[in-house]
Amino acid sequence: MIGPMPAYPLAAPLRSGNRRALARAITLAESSRPEHLLEAQRLLAEVLPHTGRSVRVGLTGVPGVGKSSFIEALGLRLADAGHRVAVLAVDPSSQRTGGSILGDKTRMPKLAVHPGAFIRPSPSSGALGGVARRTREAALLCEAAGHDVILIETVGVGQSETQVAAMTDVFVLLTLPNAGDELQGIKRGIMELADLCVVNKADLDAAATRRAKSELAAALHLLTPRSASWQPRVLAASALTGAGLDEVWAVVQACVADGARVQARRQAQTGQWFEELLREAAWQALASRLDAAELGRVRAGVNAGELTPVQGVSALLEAVNPDRRRGGG
Amino acid sequence: MIGPMPAYPLAAPLRSGNRRALARAITLAESSRPEHLLEAQRLLAEVLPHTGRSVRVGLTGVPGVGKSSFIEALGLRLADAGHRVAVLAVDPSSQRTGGSILGDKTRMPKLAVHPGAFIRPSPSSGALGGVARRTREAALLCEAAGHDVILIETVGVGQSETQVAAMTDVFVLLTLPNAGDELQGIKRGIMELADLCVVNKADLDAAATRRAKSELAAALHLLTPRSASWQPRVLAASALTGAGLDEVWAVVQACVADGARVQARRQAQTGQWFEELLREAAWQALASRLDAAELGRVRAGVNAGELTPVQGVSALLEAVNPDRRRGGG
Repeated sequence: MIGPMPAYPLAAPLRSGNRRALARAITLAESSRPEHLLEAQRLLAEVLPHTGRSVRVGLTGVPGVGKSSFIEALGLRLADAGHRVAVLAVDPSSQRTGGSILGDKTRMPKLAVHPGAFIRPSPSSGALGGVARRTREAALLCEAAGHDVILIETVGVGQSETQVAAMTDVFVLLTLPNAGDELQGIKRGIMELADLCVVNKADLDAAATRRAKSELAAALHLLTPRSASWQPRVLAASALTGAGLDEVWAVVQACVADGARVQARRQAQTGQWFEELLREAAWQALASRLDAAELGRVRAGVNAGELTPVQGVSALLEAVNPDRRRGGG
Repeated sequence: MIGPMPAYPLAAPLRSGNRRALARAITLAESSRPEHLLEAQRLLAEVLPHTGRSVRVGLTGVPGVGKSSFIEALGLRLADAGHRVAVLAVDPSSQRTGGSILGDKTRMPKLAVHPGAFIRPSPSSGALGGVARRTREAALLCEAAGHDVILIETVGVGQSETQVAAMTDVFVLLTLPNAGDELQGIKRGIMELADLCVVNKADLDAAATRRAKSELAAALHLLTPRSASWQPRVLAASALTGAGLDEVWAVVQACVADGARVQARRQAQTGQWFEELLREAAWQALASRLDAAELGRVRAGVNAGELTPVQGVSALLEAVNPDRRRGGG
């Protein structure tokens, strides 16, 4: 176990709100070099007691819904009201060079220069641990730096919405006034993650907005268990005019008003992530002992219906551990 | 890898349609005794080329929806028309003694005695591999025995609906005419698994049935990606009067009419199950090397916010493999 540590050099400036220290700390946590990983974990251990004091909001939406504009408009309103707002992003398609369009300061130019805001593009995918892990750690570092609002945006790639919902207190789904058609563009499972649906660009067409709100509310009603402690809400807003943004924040605050519920949710999320990391480590340990060609052959055999999955796994495990007592699985 | 085998004794009678052979084969596959596991896998390997020629239908529904009556009514209609119908069940709460109420012949007395039908209660939970694995293998054995319709029912316990949807070609959700209220009793994620929703007990209240169909159709429209190859349908039926059952089967047949799509879905399901089994085996391999008390301490530390999940996993892995090069995760 990790014992008492000397204060890590970045910890103090980070906690005092120094932006460069925060940026450097996040870069350190994103690095896949082993020596950086160790330093990053030490820093996180050092600042961990000072995390948790924020509202974490995840946001996703259909392409073209105006996510960046919405986040900027909401972020500016909160920063102007004295909040310290951090904007992070989860984009598994992000490349090491060229970066991601999410969390890109050029798409939120006003917010990028607001003294109360900190914007960070998505970490690139590929290295160990994944985008989700680095974003969780970046959120902790932002909290330790005093940010009381963490906005994490994502697009519909892979499992990113599920991952962002699993690291936030409130998950927001942005849609357009053509709710029916637009939502059909969203992957299965996203509506059920939403704590709040916001019909954006409400300024365009009031009647379409009303219809969209009504359809969404009916669908959410069907999808939400009677026993749920929070009933998802549907609002309309316009990032362009600012209409509805105060109501959006009011609903977010209502969603996190029950401190015990939020803590329980966070604890469950952290525990679940621990189990996922443990299983991922277990898989890596086995995968490193499997012959890649043999694994490919077995997979092909299973896909061709020549052997059952159970037989395939048995064969692979016997190759790895020939004196393993037959059975199990 | 498993080489050529002599024909397993049960294989021939099973393939010729002998019910006792089928029942014995399934009992063998459900056993957790190591010598039985080996025999069961040999039998499956022997008959595997003769599987796949059926329509696999999963069924779930809210408590009180009349699942057993519906399955019996549908099963009788199909058996009377010359189909060979097998009824299986996935009930993770099933106990070794006392069994499960699912797939219970006493709840489908007419179907139980129909020469064209075979009913099997859910295997009990607890032993290695789980209920889902045994049900998958039972379905394969039923197909090898000549059953061309496999009905697999489940209740809303744990992940059973997800598991049954992952082993069937068509997933049916049964509801009552109070769709809105009733569906709120269903767990998140179930509506999105459904290929077909059937409002049962339609004979009770025609107006309520129409409303339920309308609500369900609207919700499914919102939830189904525009690109989906199958648009979920909503029907009404009455197990009591028999109304709508022919339409239900017609929609099931329409859903499996695209042979290439069905094959692709089955291949994806089999491949996915292989990956799940592999990861489960990997986890078992690591878990057996972890000190249970240490694991409990680390879990508690993570839940208390004293260390991050990444740190917890690192600590556990170091204890298992102290000379592992630091890094990763």
